[in-house]
Amino acid sequence: MKYIIGIDIGGTNVKIALMDSKMRIKAKRIFPTSAARGKTALINSACDHVQCLLSEYGVSRKDLIGAGIGAPGAVNVRTGVVHYFVNIPAWREVQLGRIMQKRLKVPVFVDNDVNVMALAEYRYGAGRSSQNMLGIALGTGVGGGLVLEGRVFRGTAYAGGEVGHLQLSFNGPKCKCGSHGCLEAYAGGVYIVKAVAAAIRAGERTYIKELVGGDLSKITPEIIDEAARCGDSFAKSVWRGVGLAVGMGIAGVANLLNIDKVVIGGGVARAGKILFDAIRKTVKERTMKLPAKTVKIVKAQLGYDAGVIGAGALVLYELGK
Amino acid sequence: MKYIIGIDIGGTNVKIALMDSKMRIKAKRIFPTSAARGKTALINSACDHVQCLLSEYGVSRKDLIGAGIGAPGAVNVRTGVVHYFVNIPAWREVQLGRIMQKRLKVPVFVDNDVNVMALAEYRYGAGRSSQNMLGIALGTGVGGGLVLEGRVFRGTAYAGGEVGHLQLSFNGPKCKCGSHGCLEAYAGGVYIVKAVAAAIRAGERTYIKELVGGDLSKITPEIIDEAARCGDSFAKSVWRGVGLAVGMGIAGVANLLNIDKVVIGGGVARAGKILFDAIRKTVKERTMKLPAKTVKIVKAQLGYDAGVIGAGALVLYELGK
Repeated sequence: MKYIIGIDIGGTNVKIALMDSKMRIKAKRIFPTSAARGKTALINSACDHVQCLLSEYGVSRKDLIGAGIGAPGAVNVRTGVVHYFVNIPAWREVQLGRIMQKRLKVPVFVDNDVNVMALAEYRYGAGRSSQNMLGIALGTGVGGGLVLEGRVFRGTAYAGGEVGHLQLSFNGPKCKCGSHGCLEAYAGGVYIVKAVAAAIRAGERTYIKELVGGDLSKITPEIIDEAARCGDSFAKSVWRGVGLAVGMGIAGVANLLNIDKVVIGGGVARAGKILFDAIRKTVKERTMKLPAKTVKIVKAQLGYDAGVIGAGALVLYELGK
Repeated sequence: MKYIIGIDIGGTNVKIALMDSKMRIKAKRIFPTSAARGKTALINSACDHVQCLLSEYGVSRKDLIGAGIGAPGAVNVRTGVVHYFVNIPAWREVQLGRIMQKRLKVPVFVDNDVNVMALAEYRYGAGRSSQNMLGIALGTGVGGGLVLEGRVFRGTAYAGGEVGHLQLSFNGPKCKCGSHGCLEAYAGGVYIVKAVAAAIRAGERTYIKELVGGDLSKITPEIIDEAARCGDSFAKSVWRGVGLAVGMGIAGVANLLNIDKVVIGGGVARAGKILFDAIRKTVKERTMKLPAKTVKIVKAQLGYDAGVIGAGALVLYELGK
């Protein structure tokens, strides 16, 4: 029996899992990203936790196939270089793959976090049996990952997959990428929260305001969700608006790539039926006949563990297994 | 020396070329699509012209590697079925590949016309040395073709490439596909002409009106182009508007696929510098840093012959040569 290590470096937490070759999680560790102040501390912590997991579960290094890492932002999967890391300012062009491989003494592969999530869903989740799949992570921002003809498609400089930066309007809200009217500027969690707070300040009456006791800085996608579930019509219209934007993005990708599956995960996707209904309605209305018939829109299946499972899946994928 | 037949079925004309294996055109024939009333007449005409070309140039059937066909609309490249053909109403699910192969007694391959144009530019034109390329045909409509990692990417049901149906606005002009705010509804020749006529009717003063002697039904992209070249500020603003829409579409595709080259051809692309400047400016402003650095936007090189060259290139491509 052979084992794999999956490491999911998030903005908030680092998750590390020891898995078997079918990506069944045997043991797991979580520690806060911020606690490791700086890149060296982060790498040290990760290596220590891997060592602990191996000892704990009684797995020796020679039983390890390798380790996979999912990291946010632009990653060069060939060289293992993570170009930058928003939460760790000193992080610039770090040879994460090479450093970790030296420390762990097993093959190490690194890719963008949403690419590995998409790979996880494609191999073990809602994307199984798909030929051409788009994975969308609806969280603070809007991330994407493509698996085309069974291959993770990353583009010429490994920077592809950014479905959140499809352009949905000529004069839309400003996006942190420098453009405006990006899908993310309508459907990213921080943008949704900002727009809701602005609407309340402008006089919108909604149960959201009561839920946060009038403190608009406490609004979160979960609170908007709760208000919508309680029947608040403004909160429901917020999710319909997000669904319209996501649906327009998917319609464009379906027309361009004639994909057969879109797998949607991430915290914002928990809004559930009202959001998915709006997405499916928009995709149906705005996609050409044949690609509309081809594409199915489904919820991600792997949830919280998609990151570590994807990181592990990356190891087998890159080794051609 | 081996030869290839390339057949480019357009809405107006059918072009047939006899080429060598380097896609150098040896002899060419053109006949109007409409003259062949109905599918049988069209197929008969095409076969007759191929026979004439072979006799004329003294090439025997055993010296032919095969024949390639580019056809508008949805084509299943595996089965050679052309699903429909706008200009020939009786055309429904025609097994064009099988019929032509039986008649010509050589391997026949059929694909979407813009896919073969993209393949032609990728192999013999402005897309050479590209790794991930988007071809855009700016004509009556806006067509697209993708060559990703050296492969023509068509999607699950071979209906992909439709870059003209990226969604650029929530409430844009109606598109013939049933949606609204598609790239094509801003940048397709028929839509440009319609918008210009509407603006003139609404009182816009422009040299275009004089060029058509007041008959707005005579407006064409060429006329708008002529007015722009004469310094007409409205005509110039039309091309800047088209460039903005095309640039937004390219920005989205660059973010999604991290392509390194966009090759733009078709009649509308003749608007030249003013159009390309607007496209490049928009792409620079609205694409994320790394994909913006990766992508180059260039003019198609093969012009009028891209269709037959692409059809010929399809033969070698499908035979793995």
